Amino acid sequence: MHELRKDPILNRWVAVLKDSKSPGYYLETMPHLVGSPKSLRLSGVETHASKDSNCILCHGKDHETLEIFAIRDNNASNWRTRVIPRPSPVFRIEGDLGRKGVGMYDIMNSIGANEIIIESPSHNTQPEDMDVSQMAAVLETYRHRISELEKDPRFRYILIHKDFGKIAGELYSHPHSEVIATPIIPKGIKEELDGAKAYYYYKERCVFCDIMNEELKTGKRVIVETGNFVAFIPFAPKHPFEYWIMPRRHDCAFQGINKAEIEDLAAILSLTIKKMRSLLKNPPYTYVLHTAPNRIPRKDHWHTLGEDFHWHIEIMPVITSKSGFELNSELYILDTSPEDAAGNFRETSPL
Amino acid sequence: MHELRKDPILNRWVAVLKDSKSPGYYLETMPHLVGSPKSLRLSGVETHASKDSNCILCHGKDHETLEIFAIRDNNASNWRTRVIPRPSPVFRIEGDLGRKGVGMYDIMNSIGANEIIIESPSHNTQPEDMDVSQMAAVLETYRHRISELEKDPRFRYILIHKDFGKIAGELYSHPHSEVIATPIIPKGIKEELDGAKAYYYYKERCVFCDIMNEELKTGKRVIVETGNFVAFIPFAPKHPFEYWIMPRRHDCAFQGINKAEIEDLAAILSLTIKKMRSLLKNPPYTYVLHTAPNRIPRKDHWHTLGEDFHWHIEIMPVITSKSGFELNSELYILDTSPEDAAGNFRETSPL
Repeated sequence: MHELRKDPILNRWVAVLKDSKSPGYYLETMPHLVGSPKSLRLSGVETHASKDSNCILCHGKDHETLEIFAIRDNNASNWRTRVIPRPSPVFRIEGDLGRKGVGMYDIMNSIGANEIIIESPSHNTQPEDMDVSQMAAVLETYRHRISELEKDPRFRYILIHKDFGKIAGELYSHPHSEVIATPIIPKGIKEELDGAKAYYYYKERCVFCDIMNEELKTGKRVIVETGNFVAFIPFAPKHPFEYWIMPRRHDCAFQGINKAEIEDLAAILSLTIKKMRSLLKNPPYTYVLHTAPNRIPRKDHWHTLGEDFHWHIEIMPVITSKSGFELNSELYILDTSPEDAAGNFRETSPL
Repeated sequence: MHELRKDPILNRWVAVLKDSKSPGYYLETMPHLVGSPKSLRLSGVETHASKDSNCILCHGKDHETLEIFAIRDNNASNWRTRVIPRPSPVFRIEGDLGRKGVGMYDIMNSIGANEIIIESPSHNTQPEDMDVSQMAAVLETYRHRISELEKDPRFRYILIHKDFGKIAGELYSHPHSEVIATPIIPKGIKEELDGAKAYYYYKERCVFCDIMNEELKTGKRVIVETGNFVAFIPFAPKHPFEYWIMPRRHDCAFQGINKAEIEDLAAILSLTIKKMRSLLKNPPYTYVLHTAPNRIPRKDHWHTLGEDFHWHIEIMPVITSKSGFELNSELYILDTSPEDAAGNFRETSPL
């Protein structure tokens, strides 16, 4: 069980496990980070080559997990995608928030939803390596889970992300994404919402629409365009080779996506991931779906009704260690310019 | 050469190297992060056991570097601490800021100061392992560099930090800290200043004084106290076993520290680092001196004159990999409670 605690200065919440791990736990789980001699043997990226017979995400282990949702083709017995509760969840579905003060501080229960989206029945096949309809099924699953979970009035935000590779924090080597619904809007998301709102207040235009227009005009940072989407490297990214995929049609919320857009997004996401894998030799990566908060009545006085935010996906290869300076100042240092990274992407054939 | 670029949504600056590194650079420098087979041989923490005859920070190599400042004992030929320019600096001292717009975006030259503080003449001896006067000399060097650099009107902030261990981003295996003076207040710092200011506006008290009083009252998260300082685990930290050292006397700026306080700080910093090394088996770590921005006239309408900020040091062992969810949401998940971590610290003898 975790509890949520608020930092009194930064307005950031953290989830604290009540049944603490001892210092020894970190030495065992993170030997590549600490100075133990076994670090040289145990560190590095785990290979994804072998099927793990204990993997509860694999087809055939369905009886071991609860099925929240699944996509099956007509007349097919097997599923394409499947959603299960995360074992040992950080956020739990049962209970009330129990917000209260403790001395000068604030805490609440870690209420939320925490689900695993299995992206493929096969342990060793990523959705981008299958027919594009498989990636479309993954995206349709995202749409479904957000549409369902936003009905729960306790949840303020629903974040879907994929972590690939141990260094990126993946939970399983089987292809999967994670859904986390939280009773607060996480700080990293709120900053983006607030920044976009401030721009809208000043310009009365969506900052993301303006960025996309600027990128299409200069073309220097564009990786690839389709009828409905643009993939580009942002002007001032946090990570080298980070890229964004943005819909041309303004919509604040991902769940408003239509069928044709899902197929188009599946194609551009698959293509660019395969280009990234080719360019950076199958790197660990994270992608995050940035979408509007749940449609609670807006309390601000501008009533922008979703005109100030624009859903998109941010894809970040994990190929650098950030220094203490970068992590604490949030002034990141990039050794490759966005323009050169976009050129590399354009010239690279998908793996 | 780097240029500074501003993210148009998050108001965060990044430093972009103009002469880009190719994708292959990352595969060579970060093999433990990517899936190359040599990762198993090359990754892990480098040992600090052997003197490197090529180390330009060592005593005897003084002629190879420019001396900006040094502390020497009376009648001693050797130095205790020495400050040199950082080779290949990210921020350069010569030039003007050259702020301008490019399309909808903003850029400026990467003007600033970038110095290395050599903390010990000996390659293999950390200041905490020497007489406490050595750590006091390191802290006195910090005070001197801030006092000098704040005179330059181009610099808005001066950040001093130490990264220990490759994973934490250290530049050299010789004991050192880094000084970075920047033409903007970095986002991570500005958030803390803004949060403290908002609290002051509401309570008319310093949030850091309130936190210290709360911690001393409950005692649950206190590691150790001295006459002038308190070391404690914050209520909602970002990292497990992260701790802060805070002066009892309210002062927004580190450079106001007096001689007795420097000696006391040297003792508590050395003691707690040695406890951390014992508890977590010599982990990589970062510490950051949090101090007020340069004394430019305050433009806000409260004129708090430094009552709203309180300098302190934050020390963070690097013993976990943050997941993509944590890094993007900034909702961090801690597997050890601050209360238990403080208990572990209290019970552990310094290494």
